[in-house]
Amino acid sequence: MTNVTVIGDGQLARMMQPAAIELGITLRVLAGSPDASAAQVIPEVIHGDYTSLEDLQRAAEDTDAVTFDHEHVPTEHLRALQSAGINVHPGPDALIYAQDKLLMRERLRELGAPVPEFAAINSIDDALAFSAQVGGQVCLKARRGGYDGKGVWFPEGADIVSLVGELLDAGTPLMAERKVDLARELSALCARSATGEVRSWPVADSVQKDGVCFTAQAPAAALPQPWISERLGSDAPAGTGLEALTELAEYIATSLGVTGVLAVELFQEKDGRVLVNELAMRPHNTGHWTQDGSVTSQFEQHLRAVLGWPLGDTSLLAPTVVMANTLGDTQGARDVMNLYPDVKVHVYGKQARPGRKVGHVNLCGTDPDATLQRATEAAAIVVGGINDAQGRN
Amino acid sequence: MTNVTVIGDGQLARMMQPAAIELGITLRVLAGSPDASAAQVIPEVIHGDYTSLEDLQRAAEDTDAVTFDHEHVPTEHLRALQSAGINVHPGPDALIYAQDKLLMRERLRELGAPVPEFAAINSIDDALAFSAQVGGQVCLKARRGGYDGKGVWFPEGADIVSLVGELLDAGTPLMAERKVDLARELSALCARSATGEVRSWPVADSVQKDGVCFTAQAPAAALPQPWISERLGSDAPAGTGLEALTELAEYIATSLGVTGVLAVELFQEKDGRVLVNELAMRPHNTGHWTQDGSVTSQFEQHLRAVLGWPLGDTSLLAPTVVMANTLGDTQGARDVMNLYPDVKVHVYGKQARPGRKVGHVNLCGTDPDATLQRATEAAAIVVGGINDAQGRN
Repeated sequence: MTNVTVIGDGQLARMMQPAAIELGITLRVLAGSPDASAAQVIPEVIHGDYTSLEDLQRAAEDTDAVTFDHEHVPTEHLRALQSAGINVHPGPDALIYAQDKLLMRERLRELGAPVPEFAAINSIDDALAFSAQVGGQVCLKARRGGYDGKGVWFPEGADIVSLVGELLDAGTPLMAERKVDLARELSALCARSATGEVRSWPVADSVQKDGVCFTAQAPAAALPQPWISERLGSDAPAGTGLEALTELAEYIATSLGVTGVLAVELFQEKDGRVLVNELAMRPHNTGHWTQDGSVTSQFEQHLRAVLGWPLGDTSLLAPTVVMANTLGDTQGARDVMNLYPDVKVHVYGKQARPGRKVGHVNLCGTDPDATLQRATEAAAIVVGGINDAQGRN
Repeated sequence: MTNVTVIGDGQLARMMQPAAIELGITLRVLAGSPDASAAQVIPEVIHGDYTSLEDLQRAAEDTDAVTFDHEHVPTEHLRALQSAGINVHPGPDALIYAQDKLLMRERLRELGAPVPEFAAINSIDDALAFSAQVGGQVCLKARRGGYDGKGVWFPEGADIVSLVGELLDAGTPLMAERKVDLARELSALCARSATGEVRSWPVADSVQKDGVCFTAQAPAAALPQPWISERLGSDAPAGTGLEALTELAEYIATSLGVTGVLAVELFQEKDGRVLVNELAMRPHNTGHWTQDGSVTSQFEQHLRAVLGWPLGDTSLLAPTVVMANTLGDTQGARDVMNLYPDVKVHVYGKQARPGRKVGHVNLCGTDPDATLQRATEAAAIVVGGINDAQGRN
């Protein structure tokens, strides 16, 4: 029986379990609490802490592959597991670029991938120099540990001095990048198997609110102009439009030696240029639409990839597919089932709390705008119930 | 948290778990062994025997609904659970018609549904009289407990005397029906919620080999002629072709008060007439294609139905969808992933054994014949691996 250990107990680990069940794979999860989202649905739970090497070793015993639902496992522990002969996917040499935003930016620049201007920030002087360089348009980031808008700041004017001072005093390693002139966000999702095989899904549009993913829709609307050959230079993949973003994601996956799903979060600026924002080396919120809108979901593909199995077809099942997050509550799930029989409701088994990611809906359709609207309406009803959602209209 | 108890630990219970996970439903399974197919993937396992009322009561404690992955729970136990206020779906008044083939035939005849000529067989004289009535074309069946061709006999000539004698001596309640002149088998699949809402999937063609389901394909090829109004009489639903079979299934579901999935297995005779063969009140092998070929799978729909939730859309995701069982082994699953990236491989976690249902594949396509052939080839490779399957070509 094939066994995969997942480090992390959230909804991403939870949603690997349906795929594992169908493929006959036994999952084991390292969970911080017995009622965590993934621990509710996976029989083999190792209780422990992902920052403890001993707990990681217990979880990794006799497993075919170790993988993750987050980026927060200490790199030195991953190297220790790997040295002990354990199949860690993605491996620490790849994962470091999803863990440390400064190293990621430096490596992508080396690879010729388009990134915003950036700098290491080790002092207030560094911050002031970078701010002058980018005309005060500064986005300050913790190098490690951020997610869903946490660890990101947009200091105004002289505020940067006190903010950087406080963060450095608190021991937070920092970087800064130019605050981009954002037209929209995109997500290029692919998977790379331990064998080297790579497959991509169509690029998705993604909409964030308050730093949290709100909707994702595939395929994305076309790019306004061919920009990529200019941006990437002669070493980079050729192409125009969205295909170029897919090629970029596959180029990054192969260059970094990623195994499993790679999500390349992208910014499109108002002048049409596209820049890489973040990398995630695991199933990603902007790829949840693949559960109901693609022949192979990102969760199934991730498991196949980390096991070195052949990858599945990533074709769409409909002309357009929308995912909309349900943030805060899922009290209206049955109302949505009643009103929208074609909407796929996903519930994570997490306590309701304002703004918390507790579920999402997926919807296949033919008209992009109508499908986006319908999915967004359905998600609002999942959160608030029919009466509340009507009150807000 | 919504909780559903499933009595039965096979692949049907197992395949409810992915749907339960996505809907945020907690499953509990009454399992005969800790390594049973469903017990491998569901954390909350009650070990026990489905013929023990005490074990059933333990499994049903504080649950929102009790349902089944087989028909073999004693009727008196179901009545006892129901009397204790437990939500049993389907209830014993409906399930009896999936448990006892004679009662089923009698009730369907009352309802005006088309069934082969049949008789209760309580003596050798009964058998001889019925054989004379149908010109020796006798199919003998155990009234209860049969599945996958077990409990079905086709006695030739005078063999019927010794066979019936042996079976009655062994205490097997019997019935007989006319052996039909089979052109093909069909399956009309619907679900009825505890609220009374009914939804159907497109009727599927189904091919059996040695009494075991080999392939199912939806939608089925059209019926050769309008036959149903003649067969069903004035009280029956009107219609022609496959829609009439869907109406028949929904009429049976509503008339019998079924809750959950109802599979109506049908025979089409060579003269074009369609007869009801069997009823199953649970997800059914001929409906596995819905996992990858319909907006709502039969497993999700069954859970929604037994909970009295609104039912999901049953539209197809492709012009044609094929399910092919993998009987005996799944050693070639990775070969199939490599050769057929669009084939969905399902593995039940059961020990390999010749002829045993250990998995299936699903495949969406556009051309019915080509898709059937491709899915059948893929299933053969899952069973035997690429070398073995090539050797058989």
